[in-house]
Amino acid sequence: MKSYHQMSKKELLEEQEKVVAQYEALKKRGLTLDMSRGKPSSEQLDLSRKMLDCITSESSCISEEGIDCRNYGVLDGIKEAKEFIASMVDASAENVIVYGNSSLNLMYDTIARAMLHGIMGNTPWSKLDKVKFLCPVPGYDRHFAITSHFGIEMIPVPMKSTGPDMDMIERLVKEDESIKGIWCVPKYSNPQGYSYSDDTVKRFAKLKPAAKDFRIFWDNAYAIHHLYEEKQDVILNILEECEKENNKDLVYEFCSTSKITFAGGGIAGLITSQNNIKDIKKQMGIQTIGHDKMNQLRHVKFFSEIVSLKEHMKRHANILRPKFETVLTILENELSGLEIGEWNRANGGYFISFDSLEGCAKRIIALAKEAGVIMTPAGATYPNGIDPLDKNIRIAPSLPSIDELEMATKLFTVCVKLASLEKLL
Amino acid sequence: MKSYHQMSKKELLEEQEKVVAQYEALKKRGLTLDMSRGKPSSEQLDLSRKMLDCITSESSCISEEGIDCRNYGVLDGIKEAKEFIASMVDASAENVIVYGNSSLNLMYDTIARAMLHGIMGNTPWSKLDKVKFLCPVPGYDRHFAITSHFGIEMIPVPMKSTGPDMDMIERLVKEDESIKGIWCVPKYSNPQGYSYSDDTVKRFAKLKPAAKDFRIFWDNAYAIHHLYEEKQDVILNILEECEKENNKDLVYEFCSTSKITFAGGGIAGLITSQNNIKDIKKQMGIQTIGHDKMNQLRHVKFFSEIVSLKEHMKRHANILRPKFETVLTILENELSGLEIGEWNRANGGYFISFDSLEGCAKRIIALAKEAGVIMTPAGATYPNGIDPLDKNIRIAPSLPSIDELEMATKLFTVCVKLASLEKLL
Repeated sequence: MKSYHQMSKKELLEEQEKVVAQYEALKKRGLTLDMSRGKPSSEQLDLSRKMLDCITSESSCISEEGIDCRNYGVLDGIKEAKEFIASMVDASAENVIVYGNSSLNLMYDTIARAMLHGIMGNTPWSKLDKVKFLCPVPGYDRHFAITSHFGIEMIPVPMKSTGPDMDMIERLVKEDESIKGIWCVPKYSNPQGYSYSDDTVKRFAKLKPAAKDFRIFWDNAYAIHHLYEEKQDVILNILEECEKENNKDLVYEFCSTSKITFAGGGIAGLITSQNNIKDIKKQMGIQTIGHDKMNQLRHVKFFSEIVSLKEHMKRHANILRPKFETVLTILENELSGLEIGEWNRANGGYFISFDSLEGCAKRIIALAKEAGVIMTPAGATYPNGIDPLDKNIRIAPSLPSIDELEMATKLFTVCVKLASLEKLL
Repeated sequence: MKSYHQMSKKELLEEQEKVVAQYEALKKRGLTLDMSRGKPSSEQLDLSRKMLDCITSESSCISEEGIDCRNYGVLDGIKEAKEFIASMVDASAENVIVYGNSSLNLMYDTIARAMLHGIMGNTPWSKLDKVKFLCPVPGYDRHFAITSHFGIEMIPVPMKSTGPDMDMIERLVKEDESIKGIWCVPKYSNPQGYSYSDDTVKRFAKLKPAAKDFRIFWDNAYAIHHLYEEKQDVILNILEECEKENNKDLVYEFCSTSKITFAGGGIAGLITSQNNIKDIKKQMGIQTIGHDKMNQLRHVKFFSEIVSLKEHMKRHANILRPKFETVLTILENELSGLEIGEWNRANGGYFISFDSLEGCAKRIIALAKEAGVIMTPAGATYPNGIDPLDKNIRIAPSLPSIDELEMATKLFTVCVKLASLEKLL
């Protein structure tokens, strides 16, 4: 197709007339579709149905170490659940704290603890004049919502296909003691689907921050969430790399089964050094007697007795892959050559990241909404919801059906064309 | 039996010789018993076994309002779970937020939020020079651990059989703006088993604290945890009373199913005014996408399809009552008339509170431990673990078997005698 940038004004006007007609026609269909959030579909949730049979009234509820999982106790999780979480991210069970149903809650609590009680004896962040976080952008809106909520200043760091700009990160953490952390989604990043290169992970492990209580918040949310059997990203193990660099307290790694079993009823885990675990457990012991061990046991049984984690993730991929392909094919067919948008083709994760022409993202989202398709709000992938170039849009293909995705993506491309034409004219 | 206080020195010495011999004999039996924590027994946990069959792979996981409980979403709980929690404490579902598996965690988070973000627009407590809490004593050690953890100064308020000293509370909250809250266990209090009188509840509802962000932390942990069919305490509904007094934002009420279904795998609830709910949800929405709705659904199904809550609590009582009776009978048989201890005979709850002679509690606990019986540490029922008179001991009869309780209580009475004799001689 001919690039919009090479069209004459007349051609652009003709194109606009055509696209407006397409838009109006689609609008008349009264769509109500949602491509806004990374929610698993029912079909994906059904993959874990049998987990519900793993503990019944006939089952033993006693853990390997003889713990009655129904009762109080065991602050950091039963042994076999630690082993299971460890297996998800290639860690040791001794480095794991098993949490409740939400890794977001775990991340929030980790920051809340640092605010109120400080990390390993350091001044609580709430007592400092200024606390800053580095935020690779585009990134995950709920990360930014947490840091914003605590009044933490967010410094955007540009993402590249190899990970965030490490030159910038190394320079900033070395010179500014008020920088206390960085949000990372190291594998199949949200929203771009990038995985950090070996060099990036090694440079993270070597960081020498001015702040002793600087921590990398390593949200390994998509550690095993591949889309393809034959194309799988592999990232270095950050805890191991930090260990090599004698920097082992630098990282809090997070993961959960929310996009593996039940989004609202999974288990989450924190993976970190012994020093950090000791520090956190001391404070966690005031907060709770322990998280739900029954659900821990249920998960462990499911993945040892019913299905292997690897096979289970393959089944997820088989559901997700055609959805991603549907979106990508339509983007390709409708937009390639027009030079009005760029997008990623990731090997895993939950999102497709779309960059429009500068200043068009908000308009595209608004046009889509007007025609009945809800997208993630423009700007959501940036701290405080402000995308300075107003161009990044996160597409979440997991929840709608293929038919719905076809309609929604078709409409989306029409909105992209329309907003781009408005800009160019 | 003759009071120790009326014995001559010679009689006391003779008694001591006898008691020492009993103690040594018991010690030789090498007991390892635990009367320290209010954990339900396996037999009690078994009462909820059928709950595990309430959701299987064949079940619908869709809530009344059409929510797929497996997926993300619903910050404050599914409708039917709100209704269930509301039914436990005679409230309206609209006043309920359903939480995760731990009301302790919920209380901790409520205070953490007040510390970091403030209550309804007021200054966050962490920004104030001084924050104080009133602590009815004896009380629950984990409440005090939370306030202590946040650096909140705790002011002990004596408990009476009608509830805490209201004259003192009214005076203190009126004159001191730094007093921000009070811990209450209004029914079958921990450890004494007292229930607040109507007058006490009404006076709470009428409080006019100097601090606008003062809140009553109303931990209704034993709302339906009766021991007897025919003797049940009834307390006034604090939310209703506050409403009458135009004071409806004054209370956060907490409850959970930890001592109803599974201690580690239940659901918890916060019951409070619409203003408070709005304030809390705004902050909670940053912390999590939602708590485990599958467990909410499981609980609702169990208590609507398998057993009524009332019948279920009767079954708990049938297991607990003989245990309480065993302890009380031995205390009665061994100690009555000696004037070396006083204890309560509550109609519900989880504890028996024992007051020794002043200065004897620590010694009694140490003697018991030496002979293999773990009791709640002396002082645990007071802020910072300091019982100024060193006399209160919390006995938790729920976990051991009747046989074990007989041995442990027998030993306990011997330790009480021994420590008392040491003091009197």
